[in-house]
Amino acid sequence: MKAITLIIKEKPWIGWALFFSTILIVFLLGLLASSVIERRAEAVYAYKPSKEISQTEPRNTIWGENYPREYESYLKTADTSFRSQYNGNALIDALELDPKMVILWAGYPFSKDYNQPRGHYYAIDDIRKTLRTEAPMTPEAGKLPNTCWACKSPDVPRMMNKTGIADFYKGNWASKGAEIANFIGCADCHDAKTMNLRISRPALIEAFERQGIDVKKSSQQEMRSLVCAQCHVEYYFQGEDKYLTFPWDKGMNVDSIEKYYDSYEFSDWKHALSRTPMIKAQHPDFEVFKMGIHAQRGLACADCHMPYRSEGGVKFTDHHIQSPLNNIANTCQICHRESEETLKNNVYERQRKVHQTKDKAEELLVKAHIEAKAAWDAGASENEMKPVLILIRHAQWRWDFSVAGHGNAFHAPIEILRILGTSIDLSQEARILTSRILASHGINKPVDYPDISTKSKAQKFIGLDIENLKKEKQVFLNKIVPEWIQKAKEREAKYNFKTL
Amino acid sequence: MKAITLIIKEKPWIGWALFFSTILIVFLLGLLASSVIERRAEAVYAYKPSKEISQTEPRNTIWGENYPREYESYLKTADTSFRSQYNGNALIDALELDPKMVILWAGYPFSKDYNQPRGHYYAIDDIRKTLRTEAPMTPEAGKLPNTCWACKSPDVPRMMNKTGIADFYKGNWASKGAEIANFIGCADCHDAKTMNLRISRPALIEAFERQGIDVKKSSQQEMRSLVCAQCHVEYYFQGEDKYLTFPWDKGMNVDSIEKYYDSYEFSDWKHALSRTPMIKAQHPDFEVFKMGIHAQRGLACADCHMPYRSEGGVKFTDHHIQSPLNNIANTCQICHRESEETLKNNVYERQRKVHQTKDKAEELLVKAHIEAKAAWDAGASENEMKPVLILIRHAQWRWDFSVAGHGNAFHAPIEILRILGTSIDLSQEARILTSRILASHGINKPVDYPDISTKSKAQKFIGLDIENLKKEKQVFLNKIVPEWIQKAKEREAKYNFKTL
Repeated sequence: MKAITLIIKEKPWIGWALFFSTILIVFLLGLLASSVIERRAEAVYAYKPSKEISQTEPRNTIWGENYPREYESYLKTADTSFRSQYNGNALIDALELDPKMVILWAGYPFSKDYNQPRGHYYAIDDIRKTLRTEAPMTPEAGKLPNTCWACKSPDVPRMMNKTGIADFYKGNWASKGAEIANFIGCADCHDAKTMNLRISRPALIEAFERQGIDVKKSSQQEMRSLVCAQCHVEYYFQGEDKYLTFPWDKGMNVDSIEKYYDSYEFSDWKHALSRTPMIKAQHPDFEVFKMGIHAQRGLACADCHMPYRSEGGVKFTDHHIQSPLNNIANTCQICHRESEETLKNNVYERQRKVHQTKDKAEELLVKAHIEAKAAWDAGASENEMKPVLILIRHAQWRWDFSVAGHGNAFHAPIEILRILGTSIDLSQEARILTSRILASHGINKPVDYPDISTKSKAQKFIGLDIENLKKEKQVFLNKIVPEWIQKAKEREAKYNFKTL
Repeated sequence: MKAITLIIKEKPWIGWALFFSTILIVFLLGLLASSVIERRAEAVYAYKPSKEISQTEPRNTIWGENYPREYESYLKTADTSFRSQYNGNALIDALELDPKMVILWAGYPFSKDYNQPRGHYYAIDDIRKTLRTEAPMTPEAGKLPNTCWACKSPDVPRMMNKTGIADFYKGNWASKGAEIANFIGCADCHDAKTMNLRISRPALIEAFERQGIDVKKSSQQEMRSLVCAQCHVEYYFQGEDKYLTFPWDKGMNVDSIEKYYDSYEFSDWKHALSRTPMIKAQHPDFEVFKMGIHAQRGLACADCHMPYRSEGGVKFTDHHIQSPLNNIANTCQICHRESEETLKNNVYERQRKVHQTKDKAEELLVKAHIEAKAAWDAGASENEMKPVLILIRHAQWRWDFSVAGHGNAFHAPIEILRILGTSIDLSQEARILTSRILASHGINKPVDYPDISTKSKAQKFIGLDIENLKKEKQVFLNKIVPEWIQKAKEREAKYNFKTL
């Protein structure tokens, strides 16, 4: 200090300079502190709930008032304009793009109508409109069970809470049409009090329980996949009561699940051409994702499909669930230093190679079904056909497991190509046996394949009267659905919530 | 300065403190400079060649005197004790491990003897010892051409320089036995003056030339793969004169090369069972590596197989060419932050999945060959069999392309699984056609498959008298090879080099 005093005595302007620069620094620090406090205040304000919400509140609009950023971004799931090859929000007809699938699903609702997936926003809309759910004009009409609603709405946990789990699944799909009104949303994944992630669907909890795992004790990072795994999995409807069940008891890969289904002699339907007892794969997204490198490196679904975002000083999870390819800067590029174009092309290359193999697997399955039909027509016996049908069953299960998932070709391309290889082998093995059966019934030449170059030709071949189904559906949409909507409105008007 | 003078006047010890700390800092700087100079001197010393070497000098020992670090590490290619499942430097008999390959190569030398690859150190030793090169007791004996030497030794560029390229390939393999004496080494990849990487083999230069590319203008990083691509590629012996040629004119992937060979109606041999005009894939390591993610991210072969090393202040390329799995810390972990165990398991998982699919592809190919033989035996005509043989040709080419490479399952697992999927499809398609042909000749049941559970059973089935071949080989090794070695020694004793 003495030295400084001496200097200042010598040159008084140095003292003033020190004085003013101290003032300036303190002022700037004040500005910074103010900014920090302001942002913190904003953050606190943003997360101050204005309403007390019950866990069974199904209306996303109500939750959205408390959590506007999450809600607003979630509403963007209505925007599905990003899809690699196509534009717009319109439904993309997967059967039109690939009519072979009409043959593969002959005798099963998927052969009538199958669109590429759209955002969660459309969950209720799409299930009402698809021809797969038929046109039930009374609550008892139609063949589908209430289990089909299980993944569509936060009205499901509300109803399960009311009726019990088993009773929820029972009965025909149309019987709960007025109860299930809100598309997939907040209550499906969140705790109403803490907003922590929460598993609302019993099937997932039960599947892990049977393996001795208490899934409720999962870490936050695990939960960021598990809430998705409530629905994005392979499942089936067990028994008479159509109890929603995940077939994981022997393991979660394609081979173990096949063994599981075989051990029950379970089948979803009997194929209309080959008479094979078939398994329909659902969307084993979680199972396949777990077998890929991103899961092996500890990523969760949300890391790529719901990355963190920052807005006005608040960090929150972007609820616009979508392809990471539409948001590369906030997903892939967090870890990968390549350009957007490079990363996209890396994904497209995987998709192209899987797609090519998938296409071959389908072509061979189509032939296998049609040739098996020819064998039946030629007088083949049940005994002769049995080994053929087992091969077709497994070949198609493996194909379906590979393609039914939403991002399989990227999530685990190596596993998917391995599986498709087995599908190709099994289809062809079936065809070898069938060719011998045909020969033994006097037909030793290639079967005539029908023209299935368009969806409508393929549907005609399997005997579907689509125009009629569409007409019936329109009557249902005009008459029954508005009644459901009206009833739901009246019911919801009576729901309570406290304004805080 | 005035202020400082004032301070020192006030407190003289401050002046002394400044003085001594300055002395200390200067002393430490001196130490640092000395260390830098010393290391630099060591580096300069290390790279001071003691001999002037000519470009055609084939002896690695001579080059090694100038470049001891590179040479010593290169000698470690003698150590092949690291191989995922096996230990020791012994030859690993691939046919014993997988006798199906005996059937697949029936009628071709590979069915006699095929070992898992060993280090470059063994290049000459192994080619002399394998049954594939027969036991030629005179320079004119045997069926293999001199082209077989092309990748084995730095004596090859020496001889090409002397005889010309085309004349080098001509003639029987035994005719150059005394000329080709040194295992793959320095002169194969390096410029003798600058030690820059250099392409010594014309086939690579010619293949790129035909595509309008001057490969000599490649960057250093490209050269770190291209010197390997002189040999680690798919190639064939063209025409009467067995001119070494890379089949890349239509592209470098499995489909393009297949088209190339088909357009020439090229075949390596006629299969002894199915009579198929076959293509033998060599080791398309470079082509497959280029299709994988590591090449797409700009890596070269040397990045993982010859990483940089530091010794006594000298940074140099580790010439112990080996599996990166034996050197993870200096290869994978330069980019990947996972543990050694995790990274190894990632590789093993890819290998397991590819291996499973490969195994199925082989099983089906074996059946296809044996069933085709049964069809011939039943009296099938050339015309009937033609489409079957085309299918088998393509199926086996695709299998062989997938497995002949050294690290294919890791280098590009997605592409390899795609290819194996096509192989499975084509084999099975062949079997469907064959089953119809068999039925039309009165055989409408599965063919009896022979027991090929061991190499010796499989070789017996295809009519190989291995014991006799081994005896002949021993005579050749005892008599001819020592003569070759003696002649080479005498010749090399006359070589000149200047001591600098």
